[in-house]
This record gives sequence, C-alpha cells and structure tokens, in this order.
Amino acid sequence: MSPPPVQALLFDVFGTVVDWRGSITREAEAFGKRHGLERDWEAFAQDWRALYQPAMEEVRSAQRGFVKLDILHRENLDKLLIKYEIDGISEADTDHLNRAWHRLVPWADTVPGMNRLRRRHILASMSNGNIALMVNMARYAALPWDAILGAEVARAYKPMPESYLRSCEALSLAPEACMLVAAHNSDLEAARACGLRTAYVNRPTEYGALQTVDFQATSDWDYVAASMIELADQMGC
Amino acid sequence: MSPPPVQALLFDVFGTVVDWRGSITREAEAFGKRHGLERDWEAFAQDWRALYQPAMEEVRSAQRGFVKLDILHRENLDKLLIKYEIDGISEADTDHLNRAWHRLVPWADTVPGMNRLRRRHILASMSNGNIALMVNMARYAALPWDAILGAEVARAYKPMPESYLRSCEALSLAPEACMLVAAHNSDLEAARACGLRTAYVNRPTEYGALQTVDFQATSDWDYVAASMIELADQMGC
Repeated sequence: MSPPPVQALLFDVFGTVVDWRGSITREAEAFGKRHGLERDWEAFAQDWRALYQPAMEEVRSAQRGFVKLDILHRENLDKLLIKYEIDGISEADTDHLNRAWHRLVPWADTVPGMNRLRRRHILASMSNGNIALMVNMARYAALPWDAILGAEVARAYKPMPESYLRSCEALSLAPEACMLVAAHNSDLEAARACGLRTAYVNRPTEYGALQTVDFQATSDWDYVAASMIELADQMGC
Repeated sequence: MSPPPVQALLFDVFGTVVDWRGSITREAEAFGKRHGLERDWEAFAQDWRALYQPAMEEVRSAQRGFVKLDILHRENLDKLLIKYEIDGISEADTDHLNRAWHRLVPWADTVPGMNRLRRRHILASMSNGNIALMVNMARYAALPWDAILGAEVARAYKPMPESYLRSCEALSLAPEACMLVAAHNSDLEAARACGLRTAYVNRPTEYGALQTVDFQATSDWDYVAASMIELADQMGC
C-alpha cells in the first residue's frame, strides 16, 4: 500500500527558510555603527546562535517550564553584551536588536519556491521560534504561511516528538500526510521517527566557516533538493 | 494617558468574516441534489448552527475536555441527518458535507477590507473554529491571515476569558494592543472585559428571518462600521 499523499509541508525556519547568520551579522553591524562600536559582528552572530541549543535544553529537560524563544534570545543577548563589553545601551535599542530575529532575510530561492509549493500543499512553519517572531518575520519577508505552528503551539521544542506530533494534530492530519522540510539531517531524523515524510534542502553555507555538518543529505530522505525551487520542481508544483 | 496603538486585529469569523448561513444552505442544496433529496435546506443550515452553542457549552462547562469544532459539527450533523430522515449516505459524502464549514464564503466587503487593514495591522482569526477548518477556509476564500489563533490554540471556547487572553499572549501583545472585530455585541462585551479594544461590524442578515439580536451596536465600541471596508476607512488604512 502506498503512503497517502502529502497534504501539508511543515518547514524548519532558521537556516532552512531564512539566512540567520547573514541577517544577524548585518543587523549587529548596523547596531555597532549606530553606537560607534567596532566588534567582530559575524562572531557575535555565531556566538548568539551558539547559545540557542543550551537555552532550549533547559526547557526540553524540564529544568524550566516552556519559555518563548524571544525571551531565551534576550537572555542570551544580555550575556553577549557583557562578553563583548558593550554597555550603556537603552532598553529600546536592546529590544530592537533582540528583534533582529523577527527580521531575518530568506534565502533567494525561498519565496518563489514556497509560492509554488503552496499551490498544492498547506504550508506551515514548524520552528522553535515563537508565534510573534514568526508572524513578524512572515510580514517582513512575505513568507506565505497558511499557519504558524511549531514550538509555542506545541509547547515543546524540537526535536521532542511532541513538537512534531502536535503540529500534525493541529492540522488534523496524520503524520504520514505531513512532510518536514529542513536543512538539518538531525531534525529530519526526529520527524521521521514520528512518522512524518522528509525533505532535505541543502544550505551548506548556513554556519559559514563554522559549519561542520549538513553539507549534504546523510539518509535516504523522501526528497533531497538544493533549493526550494528544486523541491517544487521535484514535487511537480 | 492615551491607550497604546492597536497592533493586532483579532477577528470573529462565523458571521463576521464569512456568511455561514448562505454558504451552508448552498452546500446542503447541492448535497440534496446529488442524493435526490428535497428538504428545506435553509432550515437545515439554521438547525445545524443552532446546535453549535449547546455543543460548545459542554466543553465550556467542563462536562467534556476540549474537542475540536469539526468533531462537534459532525456530531451535530449526525443528529440532523436523523431529524431530516436522511440515511444511506456514505462516510465520504457525510464528511464532505461536514467540511462545508471549511468552504464558507466571505461577505463581499471582507477580503478587500481585510487587505487594507492588513497593511498596518497583524490580522489573526479568533474563532471557535479549529485550526484545520480555518486554514482550509482561508485557502478557499483568500483570507489574508497572519496567524490562525482562537479556540484550538487557546484550548478554550469563546466567550471564556482565556480564549481572548491567550490569543493576545500568543502574539506577545497586551490586550489593549489588540482589537476584536466582531458582528456580535456579546463577543465584544466579553473581549472588552478582558481589556481588548473593540470594533463592531454590522451583519444584520447573518441569521436571516431568524435574526433577533445584533442589528446594531448596543454599546460604545471603539469602532462601529457597516463593513470591513468602512472599518478600514475609519482606521485610516
């Protein structure tokens, strides 16, 4: 018996849909310019992202209850400002910098690819980003979501099984009628274990010089594509 | 001190955004035609809607846990099929009729008005409809939601305070930065009690001959408009 047709595409966002490293580096550079600060802003962006998994791990391991990513980002930013010896920044400016994650820029192929994929499929975000972050990013970047799902709706961070399963359930779809689209083999592995279909989109420059994994698909995912446009080609959209 | 600017508009959907009575009547007529059945299909639509509040009341009063509206609609449809002496309908055809609620048609002013309102505000559904229903309706009718919120995200049916407050919280906004747009004075009353701003859009034909309330605004809502286009005019969008 062949599997049911894929009805919904659930997208990882940071790295898969948008280029967080380039976007945060540019936002931090602009912040530095406004405040007359010279720092290695790409390292700043990388350091900020490096604090992301440990912060979520506290929630995943139930050391703390569910906390929105905006708050984790802010806690991490406060640590970074100390590390980079930046002080005297107003609350409004700090908040604006923290919301750089709401203004991430998509990879060039993202919006045209998603617009094609959307003709035949429901598109939903399945990110660890919170709802407000995703809504603002979508308005900033014209991402054509049908629904904002993911960590805040599921009250669980990826790769916890609940995060995938509750997102499918929110769409009233069986896991095998949903496909995760991601640039991270580990995310796809966790989704497959929950019964979702899988599409790998290669983003080999996501981490720049620091990238150590995800230069290519490491398993026989249902689709393997070099861009969202190529994925739309492969899916006949 | 003047209140903060409204950042998000939360919309009641059934009756405010879409014409459920006209849409369900047409869908039921088409169903009747396919099965060679002659019934009063407008009464059928009205009866189906009349079972809506009692079914939700069981959830609101905690007689049962949270249940998606699709399931309540189906339970009510099964009762109606008996009342209207309709049997021998396949599961697929019954399910298709139940999903008529996913194919409701907007009032003529809805989409142009919402497109204008969306230029300056986040637009989210705040309906008792479940996520899948809202997603399918939005794709069917080109409703430009930034986010699907409401009962299923809040795990509470309107007019419970949690349904309003958790929808604002999902957008990381204070209640006073959110405005409910609704054609029902009682819905606006409950939202105002939670601190939200209020906009009444008049839909005096929603219930047809059975309409007994909501022919006009019964309080000094922040906005009172005859259509979504007029609301956009008043808000300078």
